Amino acid sequence: MNSERLENMVKEFKIYTDRINAIQSALNLFVWDMSVDAPKGGTASRAKYMGLLAAEAFALRVSDEMRDFLEALEAERDSLDDAVRAMTRICRRQYDAYQKVPVEEIREYSELTAKAGAVWEKAKAENDFAGFAPTLEQIVRYQIKFAEYRGYEGHRYNTLLDDYEPGMTVEKLDRFFDRLKAVIVPLLKSVQASEKKINADFLQRSVSLEKQKQISELLMEKVGYDLNRGMLRENEHPFTDNMGKNDVRITTHYHENAFLSAFYSVLHECGHALYEQNKMDAIADTILDTGVSMGIHESQSRFYENMIGRSEAFWENIYDDLIKILGADFKDLSARDFYEASNIARPSLIRIEADELTYSLHIMVRYEIEKILLSGGLDVYDLPRLWSEKMREYLGVEPDSDARGVLQDVHWSEGYFGYFPSYALGNAYAAQILHAMRKDIDFEGSVRSGRLPVIQKWLAEKIHQYGSLKTPSQLIQDVTGEELNADYYTLYLKNKFSLLYTIH
Amino acid sequence: MNSERLENMVKEFKIYTDRINAIQSALNLFVWDMSVDAPKGGTASRAKYMGLLAAEAFALRVSDEMRDFLEALEAERDSLDDAVRAMTRICRRQYDAYQKVPVEEIREYSELTAKAGAVWEKAKAENDFAGFAPTLEQIVRYQIKFAEYRGYEGHRYNTLLDDYEPGMTVEKLDRFFDRLKAVIVPLLKSVQASEKKINADFLQRSVSLEKQKQISELLMEKVGYDLNRGMLRENEHPFTDNMGKNDVRITTHYHENAFLSAFYSVLHECGHALYEQNKMDAIADTILDTGVSMGIHESQSRFYENMIGRSEAFWENIYDDLIKILGADFKDLSARDFYEASNIARPSLIRIEADELTYSLHIMVRYEIEKILLSGGLDVYDLPRLWSEKMREYLGVEPDSDARGVLQDVHWSEGYFGYFPSYALGNAYAAQILHAMRKDIDFEGSVRSGRLPVIQKWLAEKIHQYGSLKTPSQLIQDVTGEELNADYYTLYLKNKFSLLYTIH
Repeated sequence: MNSERLENMVKEFKIYTDRINAIQSALNLFVWDMSVDAPKGGTASRAKYMGLLAAEAFALRVSDEMRDFLEALEAERDSLDDAVRAMTRICRRQYDAYQKVPVEEIREYSELTAKAGAVWEKAKAENDFAGFAPTLEQIVRYQIKFAEYRGYEGHRYNTLLDDYEPGMTVEKLDRFFDRLKAVIVPLLKSVQASEKKINADFLQRSVSLEKQKQISELLMEKVGYDLNRGMLRENEHPFTDNMGKNDVRITTHYHENAFLSAFYSVLHECGHALYEQNKMDAIADTILDTGVSMGIHESQSRFYENMIGRSEAFWENIYDDLIKILGADFKDLSARDFYEASNIARPSLIRIEADELTYSLHIMVRYEIEKILLSGGLDVYDLPRLWSEKMREYLGVEPDSDARGVLQDVHWSEGYFGYFPSYALGNAYAAQILHAMRKDIDFEGSVRSGRLPVIQKWLAEKIHQYGSLKTPSQLIQDVTGEELNADYYTLYLKNKFSLLYTIH
Repeated sequence: MNSERLENMVKEFKIYTDRINAIQSALNLFVWDMSVDAPKGGTASRAKYMGLLAAEAFALRVSDEMRDFLEALEAERDSLDDAVRAMTRICRRQYDAYQKVPVEEIREYSELTAKAGAVWEKAKAENDFAGFAPTLEQIVRYQIKFAEYRGYEGHRYNTLLDDYEPGMTVEKLDRFFDRLKAVIVPLLKSVQASEKKINADFLQRSVSLEKQKQISELLMEKVGYDLNRGMLRENEHPFTDNMGKNDVRITTHYHENAFLSAFYSVLHECGHALYEQNKMDAIADTILDTGVSMGIHESQSRFYENMIGRSEAFWENIYDDLIKILGADFKDLSARDFYEASNIARPSLIRIEADELTYSLHIMVRYEIEKILLSGGLDVYDLPRLWSEKMREYLGVEPDSDARGVLQDVHWSEGYFGYFPSYALGNAYAAQILHAMRKDIDFEGSVRSGRLPVIQKWLAEKIHQYGSLKTPSQLIQDVTGEELNADYYTLYLKNKFSLLYTIH
């Protein structure tokens, strides 16, 4: 191809992918709107629109036009710049993954999942698993069908894992979780046997909504979340909504008697949002204008929530400002008290309330169940029983209700199978990244003295700016000098909790 | 075509038009989001997405696939049901109108108008017409270009008039406005010469935001706006956003020292919203799930704002509830005082603050200017001068600044040329509809006794339920037994203002 023809083709390819990106942004806006504001009576109508829009984006991803673009551009691979090469890679993945799935089924499926949220919400509120089961069954059936259309090597679940973390497989994850389990389970036993008792009762003291909002503002300012290109709103289940680097929104949920809930959800979502907001301008509003994988994304939210937010240095830094807001009711407490209380480790029923030590065990429960569900070897009506079994196995506790058990998470209603492992991967990536960061930066010193911009600059330079330019494995290799390695995470947990619980 | 083939084609055609409708709904959601909530830093990105989405919907409207659908279905016209026939009619109009316009220019134009709102807002805030002029010039240039692509009979402006009010032409509108002018101008002179003086000073008394919100709730409840399928939010320029009958949202703007401003904007937008919410279920979420024309739409908002909201009967009905909210500060006033103050007639600079009598004169100013702009015979930089001239001619007043003159309306920044006449047409349709309604219903009695549901039911049955099933002229013919007739409106004005100002 001569250079002028190639240039034209690249230009057309960019416009073509921009169309996909615009529809995806519209879908993200619908998700945002439904979560924070939309009238309930419009749920079914919006579900229909979202199904149609998803089908529209899907059709563009698997069209003959896309195939022709890919074949032509792949033949000119060496002449392409990094951005176009990355776009080609991403589009090829999507094309190969989905071109065998009928667009009509994607539309039906998207409409189903757009409606399923409300069904799940009601079932959870009424502790009525049977009310959600038929919907869940349909979603699982679609997932299995899609995986069959797409084809896979090894386990059927691999197709879904790969969607969220390119290159991830059941084989790799089994090994990963085995290593985590080998450290976490005995460590948790030692913690439970420790004589060190942490007082966390004060976390239930009432903190007014107004004060909690002030705390959110303090946190957003400290970490440098740009409110000119973002906003904080309230909803039931906190999340980050990304419409490109220039519009990245987060939500939180305030609980009067658990102010740390919003505190950590804001830090968590800010971690996601900072990733999105700090991509380089060159990829703004393109299909590269998004995080590279769910695992890497989660590493950034976990980094802000845990590595920073649950460190003693951060508590020392924020203590004065926080007490000013919290007022006299909390004056009896020291920074150390907050640090300890925010890290109390104990088996619990609810994933999003879990401490850093037990968190990955909650993920393992879901991972094991998804593996079985996707294999087709489980009646969804058996889920509550299996959930109890796995919770007992990994955490030693059993739910007192389905609402606090199998119905607790929104993800399955959204069709996010294969997503949960990202949380555990994110924890591990974050620890590995922290290890690398320490070579360049005095991490504790920076956090303690409020120099978070130094840390943010490092993350932006090494990770955030690239958006989806690199693959996750290339990125982690470039940042840390090696592939994903669970040892940094287990070591991090061992160090932290041994010190905290004086285990030798 | 055999009936099975026809049935399949109709099914495919419906899905095809549903795709257009879904993209249009996404665009409406972007508009809503930008108006009430979106972060400023994302304006350019969202403009890009909206441009791409508009191009997407446009491409579907003028595709060869659409042409084939239309040709095949039009040949089977007599076998189609009302809904499909209406869909075919609408799609044919759009196809014929736009298939000659290059999609790339639609994308550029949509991006331009999505950005122009912020430019206009800034220019208005800074009273800087020159800051808006280059953008306006570009928009006008596109409008002229598009009209040229499309072709037209008579005046170039006809193409745009027809977009908002199918069948409307400069010739018809000139006649329409001449008839209005012939009555309104002398009537206004009589009003100004009348010895009757109305006191409206009390309308500037301070009413807290909280109380004004209570008033909004009272009004929404009275007229029957369904908040399960809608919501009220605040923004700078009140509007109704329609994503099908099940999601119809309105905005208002509160002014502490002019509580009637929000009062009437809520009634106005509720009129639009009731139209949208009361369409028949059979057309929900289709391209028919929207009002039939801007003029008819405006007739419904005007009906609620003016025919109901500015009637003495309504003031008598709402007086007790209102005084309960307004409190002691307003206890010196009677229902009659509110009625008179809300109808005070006098030439003014700002259209949206204009009284019922002078309102259409403001529209004439804009109509005359758009006609000249579209003919290509006017440099946009001459607009402020021409604005002053026309204001003096029609209303006898001249703006003291561009912000309160040519920059006052958002419409041109949105590319809405040909839209303004809808307001005057709406007034006229509303009076004609009221005349027809009186044959079935004791209008004043129903309003006075709070039996608004009786009125709403009549409107729903005669107008709202049909959405876009009928043409505007067919609709007004069915409802009133004749074509648009300006006499009902001029008679309505004469009766109302002669009584109010004791003119004989």
